[in-house]
Amino acid sequence: MHTDPAEYIRNAIRSVPDWPSPGVTFRDITPILQDPRSFRVLVDLFVYRYMRQRLDLVAGVDARGFILGAVLAYELNLGFVPVRKKGKLPFQTLAEEYTLEYGNATVEMHTDAVKPGQRVLLIDDLIATGGTMVAAAKLLQRLGANVVEAAAIIDLPDLGGSKNLKDTGLPLYTVCTF
Amino acid sequence: MHTDPAEYIRNAIRSVPDWPSPGVTFRDITPILQDPRSFRVLVDLFVYRYMRQRLDLVAGVDARGFILGAVLAYELNLGFVPVRKKGKLPFQTLAEEYTLEYGNATVEMHTDAVKPGQRVLLIDDLIATGGTMVAAAKLLQRLGANVVEAAAIIDLPDLGGSKNLKDTGLPLYTVCTF
Repeated sequence: MHTDPAEYIRNAIRSVPDWPSPGVTFRDITPILQDPRSFRVLVDLFVYRYMRQRLDLVAGVDARGFILGAVLAYELNLGFVPVRKKGKLPFQTLAEEYTLEYGNATVEMHTDAVKPGQRVLLIDDLIATGGTMVAAAKLLQRLGANVVEAAAIIDLPDLGGSKNLKDTGLPLYTVCTF
Repeated sequence: MHTDPAEYIRNAIRSVPDWPSPGVTFRDITPILQDPRSFRVLVDLFVYRYMRQRLDLVAGVDARGFILGAVLAYELNLGFVPVRKKGKLPFQTLAEEYTLEYGNATVEMHTDAVKPGQRVLLIDDLIATGGTMVAAAKLLQRLGANVVEAAAIIDLPDLGGSKNLKDTGLPLYTVCTF
């Protein structure tokens, strides 16, 4: 491969105009995933970054964050824990509410998902306003986790999420921006 | 490891009584995922089964099917395609409706997710009534895919899903039953 891996990934993302509403352009990662080569390049960017970080767990955000998060956990020999939308987890949970453009949303984790002091990498596919990622990081911290970094494939800096996340003191890694 | 891998996986599943409703016992796979050892044993059971099957794609069912499905796709050097709940996919979609205990549900795939003739492994975490898995297999077949096998971690045979799936002619592999 002669192109820069991050640029190769950026070029494999499909931009869908007017979705989910008029004037919004959705950045669609499914073309990356369905091609074995781009899927491998994507995963390996994260594997190389984190393979020497002495992590304990990867936390993936419901639902697209499960895809990259689970592969990374397996490849790095770590456990995987899901950060889920409200009402999806059957055992004792801890919840964190956050604000959306219209109304609120809640993310939940099992109270036994993380042991105090465990070093956790937090994964989602995209940072928009950052609300979900900030709430997920708070949940992990309330469970005693050391959130080493938040990471996503795509940053949409105009929506302010990456700034909001950095303002909480959490390092953020993303592959590309739109 | 001296125990049988399938028995080891079965023992790592947590049974949560009266969830999501009284009298129902939920089989919770999160304890498998959060322990690096059981997560690896689980994934490797599927990797060994499919590594010589000349597959093209792994299709994972929203949302827990994304976890195992994505890892398998990466490990087997295949593409990953999501089968999603209604309204989640931004590009042109094909939909398949199915019946739940109360009301209906719909799964969708991108119309360009599969090329005709591609050999696809369909993955979810659990077979209950089989409605989702049967609908996902139909979607894949309508897109021209050759669905080689459906696979899940858990079968609940009393709910009839594995029988329903086999009645459609689709082979099914599961690791354990409850």
